[in-house]
Amino acid sequence: MFTLDPRLEKDTVELDKWALSRVLLMNDSQYPWLILVPQVPDIRDIIDLDADEQATLMTEIVRASSVLKKMVNPHKLNVAALGNAVPQLHCHVIARFTTDPAWPKPIWGVNPPVPYSAEKIADFRRRFSLAAG
Amino acid sequence: MFTLDPRLEKDTVELDKWALSRVLLMNDSQYPWLILVPQVPDIRDIIDLDADEQATLMTEIVRASSVLKKMVNPHKLNVAALGNAVPQLHCHVIARFTTDPAWPKPIWGVNPPVPYSAEKIADFRRRFSLAAG
Repeated sequence: MFTLDPRLEKDTVELDKWALSRVLLMNDSQYPWLILVPQVPDIRDIIDLDADEQATLMTEIVRASSVLKKMVNPHKLNVAALGNAVPQLHCHVIARFTTDPAWPKPIWGVNPPVPYSAEKIADFRRRFSLAAG
Repeated sequence: MFTLDPRLEKDTVELDKWALSRVLLMNDSQYPWLILVPQVPDIRDIIDLDADEQATLMTEIVRASSVLKKMVNPHKLNVAALGNAVPQLHCHVIARFTTDPAWPKPIWGVNPPVPYSAEKIADFRRRFSLAAG
């Protein structure tokens, strides 16, 4: 049975469940930052998914990217499945701006997270739902 | 017309041309590190590809991952399309080990690259061709 890694659970807020992935908002207000977690047990890497799941993951990466583009029109999108700290397969989709605190570096480990207020999370959730259609 | 970004050209060695992507070896012997560059002009992000190209990119990510797995059996694979420094869409596929110089951090910006010798590049190319089948 699929269960979300406790560290991902602690660091994020659930926005939705799509066909394959749980859609999470990273609770760091410095960057519009989604995380897709395929709801398949015991998966570490994209190659551990079957071919249909891999194809669906790509369509969900594109969907998450499009939602962020509609919401905030970033300068660049960063898409990454790393998983060195949390081995459960999860895919970051991050909206980047030349004015963000880590630019042009990758965001991981640059600054400690700055959590959203409850109001900001509610606002993000509302705008996410509108943009996801 | 597609032309490879000059910085990618300088930092890598071409291994192959697949259906969509040029397959490059990052010339940094610290990590087994492939880069896939979709041979489509003027593309910055995965969402700029059409749906067929997106699907092919996923199959080529999986193929590159499988090749690295056969070649070096890594602890973890890192897959990422960032492009903050070089905006031309390119996708990193990196074999990670708990003993590599950046572990568990992402590799970008941790250490200056350590280029391969010509012999080591020839050896990588040979093993890559064998594993890619």
